[in-house]
Amino acid sequence: MSRLTAVISTGLLAVLFSVGVASASDDGIDAARDHRTRHGARILDDYARFLKTPNTPQDAGGVRQNAEQIRDLLIARGAEARLWEIEGAAPVVYGRLEAPGATRTLGIYAHYDGQPVEAERWTHPPFEPTLYTRAIEAGGTPRPFPGPDEIIDAEWRIYARSSGDDKVSFGALFEALDALGSAGIAPTSNLVFFFEGEEEQGSTHLGQFIDEHRAELDVDLWLICDGPVHQSRRPQLVFGVRGITGLEITVYGAERYLHSGHYGNWAPNPAMMLAQLLASMKDSEGRVTIEGFYESVEPLDDQGQAALERLPAIDDSLRRELGLARTEADNAPLSERILLPTLNLRGILSATVGATARNVIPTRAEASLDIRLVKGNDPDRMLDRVERHIRAQGYHIVRKEPDRETRLAHPRIARVVREKGYPAVRTSLDLPLIRPVIEAARRAAGEELVLLPTLGGSLPLYLFEQRLARPLVIVPIANHDDNQHGPDENLRIANLWYGIDLFAALLTMP
Amino acid sequence: MSRLTAVISTGLLAVLFSVGVASASDDGIDAARDHRTRHGARILDDYARFLKTPNTPQDAGGVRQNAEQIRDLLIARGAEARLWEIEGAAPVVYGRLEAPGATRTLGIYAHYDGQPVEAERWTHPPFEPTLYTRAIEAGGTPRPFPGPDEIIDAEWRIYARSSGDDKVSFGALFEALDALGSAGIAPTSNLVFFFEGEEEQGSTHLGQFIDEHRAELDVDLWLICDGPVHQSRRPQLVFGVRGITGLEITVYGAERYLHSGHYGNWAPNPAMMLAQLLASMKDSEGRVTIEGFYESVEPLDDQGQAALERLPAIDDSLRRELGLARTEADNAPLSERILLPTLNLRGILSATVGATARNVIPTRAEASLDIRLVKGNDPDRMLDRVERHIRAQGYHIVRKEPDRETRLAHPRIARVVREKGYPAVRTSLDLPLIRPVIEAARRAAGEELVLLPTLGGSLPLYLFEQRLARPLVIVPIANHDDNQHGPDENLRIANLWYGIDLFAALLTMP
Repeated sequence: MSRLTAVISTGLLAVLFSVGVASASDDGIDAARDHRTRHGARILDDYARFLKTPNTPQDAGGVRQNAEQIRDLLIARGAEARLWEIEGAAPVVYGRLEAPGATRTLGIYAHYDGQPVEAERWTHPPFEPTLYTRAIEAGGTPRPFPGPDEIIDAEWRIYARSSGDDKVSFGALFEALDALGSAGIAPTSNLVFFFEGEEEQGSTHLGQFIDEHRAELDVDLWLICDGPVHQSRRPQLVFGVRGITGLEITVYGAERYLHSGHYGNWAPNPAMMLAQLLASMKDSEGRVTIEGFYESVEPLDDQGQAALERLPAIDDSLRRELGLARTEADNAPLSERILLPTLNLRGILSATVGATARNVIPTRAEASLDIRLVKGNDPDRMLDRVERHIRAQGYHIVRKEPDRETRLAHPRIARVVREKGYPAVRTSLDLPLIRPVIEAARRAAGEELVLLPTLGGSLPLYLFEQRLARPLVIVPIANHDDNQHGPDENLRIANLWYGIDLFAALLTMP
Repeated sequence: MSRLTAVISTGLLAVLFSVGVASASDDGIDAARDHRTRHGARILDDYARFLKTPNTPQDAGGVRQNAEQIRDLLIARGAEARLWEIEGAAPVVYGRLEAPGATRTLGIYAHYDGQPVEAERWTHPPFEPTLYTRAIEAGGTPRPFPGPDEIIDAEWRIYARSSGDDKVSFGALFEALDALGSAGIAPTSNLVFFFEGEEEQGSTHLGQFIDEHRAELDVDLWLICDGPVHQSRRPQLVFGVRGITGLEITVYGAERYLHSGHYGNWAPNPAMMLAQLLASMKDSEGRVTIEGFYESVEPLDDQGQAALERLPAIDDSLRRELGLARTEADNAPLSERILLPTLNLRGILSATVGATARNVIPTRAEASLDIRLVKGNDPDRMLDRVERHIRAQGYHIVRKEPDRETRLAHPRIARVVREKGYPAVRTSLDLPLIRPVIEAARRAAGEELVLLPTLGGSLPLYLFEQRLARPLVIVPIANHDDNQHGPDENLRIANLWYGIDLFAALLTMP
């Protein structure tokens, strides 16, 4: 992967750039296609090598080695690059690649760390990349990596941790840079690379890295390179993520387990109290009945609404796949439902069930809830609303285990532990900066693009929006069925090809 | 404990009986008091020896040894006695002691098996009886068993498994027989002894033993010797038990865990569905809102109602002890509440809470409920009512895990597993057979007796009532704070003394 270095280091980039601005768009994609057609086997070899370095949180040495590799690969492509360090954090790989004369700077974010692995649940060791003729579940079989003259089937898959989430962003980016370099086509934007190594642990130090390096992160638009393409397999751009917060609620009964015969009907049952409290928060169609819960929701603008209406219909097939006869709100489309904040009961526990159930009145019952936030929702104020609702049901809220005195003073006690959350992010599809991005992705896709106003999931992208005050767009590459976070994570080769084309298009967009 | 043998084996009993019938009542108690005053140290020694034989379900050899000891102790007191066997069951000790001329036969039921022990949680080994100056929690200290001339403090306690539940019934009965024998006082009733060794495992074979020996179990009245006295420490007689049944409910969501961001607000959440279903079954005051739930309840008769009104007030102190500011139904008395059937949520589980909670939509949620039944409630019909209610909330009820087809056909699926239950038992306080029992216990107590229309707890006494068609009364002896079933089970000596007096009174009642 060293072709571009030669080009750039001769100073040719300035020349290439000046000729490239007007008409490079299609040329960029053409160059990418030519590059991956001619060098497919070598590209797979290089990518497999890149996947071999372990990147789980448990392997700090491996994580650092990944960062150093990426730094060196950037430098090899003519970029300035270095590691940023914070004590106890995985390093950030920071890089710049100037495009002389460019008036726009694109920030490219990706993460090089991977989810922990349960190796015994993988078909092959997670850091020994294995090529398959297609997905294992679809009857694929392992096959050798191809020789230089073999035809590569775009339905092949590479199995390895992070093959889809998120090393494909690096694999595609570096090959796109090489393709442009070989073809003598210069990027049309200055590039700032911001590669994180703690995303799978919740981006613990991301805010601190941003705060310490605001000036170096001053770009016009962030491309957040992560996540899978649409479940319909069509490429997509995503313009937002939901925020998140959550809480734990514990409701108390008597101080000790009571015999359900001797005290049933008399001693309050905290499991039933909690069921009643939770039931009061939602109706049977899934609508949250907490006062003001939907109040601060900012509706989509017209462009977003139009994009929403063009989304592929996936609800029926999803219901079939998941064994659901019906979904909430009378089968309302998933794409609309994720535009609302959620109140999700992620777990509930009191005493025991099944074979170990005993005839007792439990002493406590616990519920764990997460709240997905949409644009306009403030995490703390949403939790305030939930707490107001709990109080309105007659509960005295405490922050720690209630003592005897507290128990005797309040008939209903709920311990509420609030999570520290973060807000949603949503970029308008109507921004002048966004239009060429959509156009470039559309050309790379070669088909109708899915423009998703927001992911249902949450990422702490508010750090980019709030602290750097710049818009962002999420640029997914991996296949939707890549088993990300699970065993047998894989990348479909067609998605790697798309990624190379996509970066070539984005880097040369007008 | 061999004094009575000598007396009885001479055939003296018939003589003693004929002189005893008219006026023996107070004489019996006087004889018991005299006996335990003179032989207190020896009684404690013998009782401690009896407690040394392990009787947990895990120790079949120990259980059998207990049965043989009891059989021999009966024979030593002039009774016929033998073991009844069923393959795989702990033996029943059956015995008869005829009182020539008596027109009434009393059945005496007790159980000689004990709850399993967690020895490491005991202050002393559970089968090494240890004497304390008072309860450990009250600051008691261990002391040697007394010598023959030492004054015995009635607040002393013997710590050992089954000291209260239920070997005290044997200890007291044998000493009462000895006391009467020494004083030359004959029982006024024929006695049938029916001693079980599986009570703590749910009396698995009790029904079968009864069925196989109906003729030998034909008595006029059963004395069920088990359980503790009233929480006020006052002796009590109990005239019923609640029945019990139960069910497990599982509610289903999608077939696999779903990301709460990507699918929240869309995929049904089984934990919330279950909370709503459970909440629909009870109101905030604990009243069951299932149609017909209270319909078949048979109210107390006048005597029972009068007994109820004379019960000591314990609610306030119980609430304080348990850390409860308020109890159900606006602090209605416990004694009234246990006259109603209950619907108790004994456990609930869906996914995880606390530190291990994940942002998922759970696939299933389970609840375990027990239903305590009162006189008039049929176990099966009560479960039918619950199922009708579940259906009325829109659920399709299944008996096993739903398959894909079932899932796709029904928006709401509840798997219901019904327990095999049994009904309540209640004896009228107004029966002619009951009056002398109350009178005898009152004299033994020497104070106002607690007459409890029913226990809140459940015992399978319907077997006596239904299969043998005879009334019963529960005759508790042990202190209420005896830690029965737990570590450091103990018997307060005053309760042993009461037990001896009580049996002496019952055996000589007119």
